[in-house]
Amino acid sequence: MGVLGAQGKVGQAICAAVEAAADLEFVAGVDKGEDLAAFSAAGAQVVVDFTHPDVVMGNLKWLVEHGIHAVVGTTGFDAGRLDEVRSWLAGQPEVGVLIAPNFAIGAVLSMRFAEQAARWFESVEVIELHHPNKADAPSGTAYRTAGIIAAARAEAGVGPSPDATTTELEGARGADVDGVRVHSVRLAGLVAHQEVLFGTQGETLTIRHDSIDRNSFAPGVLLGVRRIGALPGLTVGLDPLLDL
Amino acid sequence: MGVLGAQGKVGQAICAAVEAAADLEFVAGVDKGEDLAAFSAAGAQVVVDFTHPDVVMGNLKWLVEHGIHAVVGTTGFDAGRLDEVRSWLAGQPEVGVLIAPNFAIGAVLSMRFAEQAARWFESVEVIELHHPNKADAPSGTAYRTAGIIAAARAEAGVGPSPDATTTELEGARGADVDGVRVHSVRLAGLVAHQEVLFGTQGETLTIRHDSIDRNSFAPGVLLGVRRIGALPGLTVGLDPLLDL
Amino acid sequence: MGVLGAQGKVGQAICAAVEAAADLEFVAGVDKGEDLAAFSAAGAQVVVDFTHPDVVMGNLKWLVEHGIHAVVGTTGFDAGRLDEVRSWLAGQPEVGVLIAPNFAIGAVLSMRFAEQAARWFESVEVIELHHPNKADAPSGTAYRTAGIIAAARAEAGVGPSPDATTTELEGARGADVDGVRVHSVRLAGLVAHQEVLFGTQGETLTIRHDSIDRNSFAPGVLLGVRRIGALPGLTVGLDPLLDL
Amino acid sequence: MGVLGAQGKVGQAICAAVEAAADLEFVAGVDKGEDLAAFSAAGAQVVVDFTHPDVVMGNLKWLVEHGIHAVVGTTGFDAGRLDEVRSWLAGQPEVGVLIAPNFAIGAVLSMRFAEQAARWFESVEVIELHHPNKADAPSGTAYRTAGIIAAARAEAGVGPSPDATTTELEGARGADVDGVRVHSVRLAGLVAHQEVLFGTQGETLTIRHDSIDRNSFAPGVLLGVRRIGALPGLTVGLDPLLDL
Repeated sequence: MGVLGAQGKVGQAICAAVEAAADLEFVAGVDKGEDLAAFSAAGAQVVVDFTHPDVVMGNLKWLVEHGIHAVVGTTGFDAGRLDEVRSWLAGQPEVGVLIAPNFAIGAVLSMRFAEQAARWFESVEVIELHHPNKADAPSGTAYRTAGIIAAARAEAGVGPSPDATTTELEGARGADVDGVRVHSVRLAGLVAHQEVLFGTQGETLTIRHDSIDRNSFAPGVLLGVRRIGALPGLTVGLDPLLDL
Repeated sequence: MGVLGAQGKVGQAICAAVEAAADLEFVAGVDKGEDLAAFSAAGAQVVVDFTHPDVVMGNLKWLVEHGIHAVVGTTGFDAGRLDEVRSWLAGQPEVGVLIAPNFAIGAVLSMRFAEQAARWFESVEVIELHHPNKADAPSGTAYRTAGIIAAARAEAGVGPSPDATTTELEGARGADVDGVRVHSVRLAGLVAHQEVLFGTQGETLTIRHDSIDRNSFAPGVLLGVRRIGALPGLTVGLDPLLDL
Repeated sequence: MGVLGAQGKVGQAICAAVEAAADLEFVAGVDKGEDLAAFSAAGAQVVVDFTHPDVVMGNLKWLVEHGIHAVVGTTGFDAGRLDEVRSWLAGQPEVGVLIAPNFAIGAVLSMRFAEQAARWFESVEVIELHHPNKADAPSGTAYRTAGIIAAARAEAGVGPSPDATTTELEGARGADVDGVRVHSVRLAGLVAHQEVLFGTQGETLTIRHDSIDRNSFAPGVLLGVRRIGALPGLTVGLDPLLDL
Repeated sequence: MGVLGAQGKVGQAICAAVEAAADLEFVAGVDKGEDLAAFSAAGAQVVVDFTHPDVVMGNLKWLVEHGIHAVVGTTGFDAGRLDEVRSWLAGQPEVGVLIAPNFAIGAVLSMRFAEQAARWFESVEVIELHHPNKADAPSGTAYRTAGIIAAARAEAGVGPSPDATTTELEGARGADVDGVRVHSVRLAGLVAHQEVLFGTQGETLTIRHDSIDRNSFAPGVLLGVRRIGALPGLTVGLDPLLDL
């Protein structure tokens, strides 16, 4: 397999993970300004792309045209971009492309479980906890998680979480994301953590994900590399590879 | 709907929950020594049985023969008993029977999520925490959870959780249930709680269930009552009703 | 010992706790409209008052004048009322009065530990979690806890918790109580819970208190009854009895 | 200030922390085989020693004799060694030596709070959770914490934690350290974590410490460096510097 942006922080971590995996072989790395032909020359079957929204479409087009599967963690894919990738793949029916916003398996499972649990509890709230250097609150993951929960509840006809608050100090009850309350904690000593709390009469269910290492995407990327050859077409999100 | 053992603790809680539910109507209760015919007389379509292993088979046979659906929380169902129930149902193709060891939705979801997550993490351990009057350690639920996890890992070819312990004070590393370490905490002020901890490089996923009320089975029982009419034959466990 | 408001919910719980304690004896209970003289007639040495702000001052004055120690959980004591109690006690130097806003030992210890830890961490936030029928957010305890932490940090010259948030969905970062962020979760299945999170480079310290029973004040009240005879004058808060 | 073992892992972390502190100045580092005279030559007022039990006594004797305060994280101090240090200090009444087994402020506070809370709860158990490469179970910190709790309970006349377990799968109830149950979890994705759980009727108090960085000793060492000049004689443990 090959890596785009191999000299970058993420690229290096992926190279290290591939090296530690007995069943995978790193054959080529390409960085900014270098020629993609290195991948075909080296016989790469899968290429990982954690680059930049500005260049990822060009990379992907080239890979698909050259019959090379792609595992993509680069951000910035909207519906239009996904359709464009699908159109390229239409002409290459044996090629697989995996595009995922999150490769941390724990985070992906958390969201999936939250979606499955959502309709079975009266109440739900999300607490996300991060290091104090984070600029946005709530985190993108919390935002997405709350949206998924809200959609699952709406589909099942579950009403809003009960809440008798009449006197609130501004902000105490958190932010409202599609009717789901989200609380953002910023604390030195933390990295990236999230808790989804579900509750009904007499019982609560908590799904907590803790990430203390920016390399926690590596196992998910390797999973993608191993599986994408058997998944022709476009796959969005890691979920379909998790056999849930 | 009707309730067997309506005067018992569990029966009373179910009656109260049914009363609070706008879409269900309690029509008959039968206790020890009373005649099951009260159910047919009252036109009960579903009967809930939280009685005793000694009498549950007689109850079930009667209900099936009279075309009444059953939701059963009574314990003591082994493979032989389940087969017997199936044989009765063969002659009554429109009748549904739900037999579940646990009706707490949070507990059922916890086990299901643990099963789904099991193969994706290097490490897994279970901590169950209960009030100090509990006689057995680990709890039945923890035992079952560890077994489900172990089976899922075995099926996926995942090896044992890494553990470099060379010096152990006896018992520190917990009990070994099919290769999964289980720790039992007994503490005043607790009721019934369980945490399943999964970990891999840089991230952990925790699924925690807290039950502080012995009535937490009620929503699951009501779900069974509502759905069993549309599920002819024998259903074991609440999972199939949770649309996972 | 005696109990004021013995027929009330709290009064009954205290009577039950006293009955279960081998070293204490219940000698008299007085309810609304009944004569306080029952206490002196029965030889009560200590009387517990969980009544109402409207009547507690009258009760206390009578008890102090009759040389009976008092343990008071009734709310509504401001500086003026406390001074008035002190003036009564000046003339009865052997009598002790304990007035405490919170008798749950775990809650009192939590606040005390939070105060002690406050100055040693860069960051601190408070999460309080309650049942969804609660009207105010944050809870009174969270409010008080944040205030205590803020005062301890100010005294030690600790600056504000670091926070790089530039994009916030309204409310995500919680309420600001004297510079300490407080988050209020409302969830079915919960009773009363609080977490104080402290963090500094590479480590966090969490102090969590869970209360699932409205009788968790009982051990604190009994502690007060046992100790107040040796504590002449006015004692405010349970802390001085906890030998910290 | 100066650092012994300045080129070692811990030494480098301390040098970095000192550099980041505006009020402290690094003047000299001495490594294995180098001359301690560098400290006096550079005018070091305090020297930090994270070296080895084999050499620490020689270092300390020299520092005390030269009127230099010492902050020591090296292990291996038994009663005999502590007495020897005291005898050196007797002749140098203005010199201060701080010897501490743990400089992580969060860990020190956790133990202290556990000690203070110990007598007020019926039940107590300790759960420590570490990365799976750890050789000993329980951890040294958990061992020490349980011992401190047991001593505090014994002193207050508190009996054993209630436990009705009659059927136990071997190891489920953890290890017994002076009557306190200790559970050791080993999980990929964790670093070093500990929870002390206290419980009594209807309430629990949890003190949790999470350390995800081996440099979490740095703030405690700097605190020692800043304060030791004002603490002549021998100080054992960080507690006396925490103004508890």
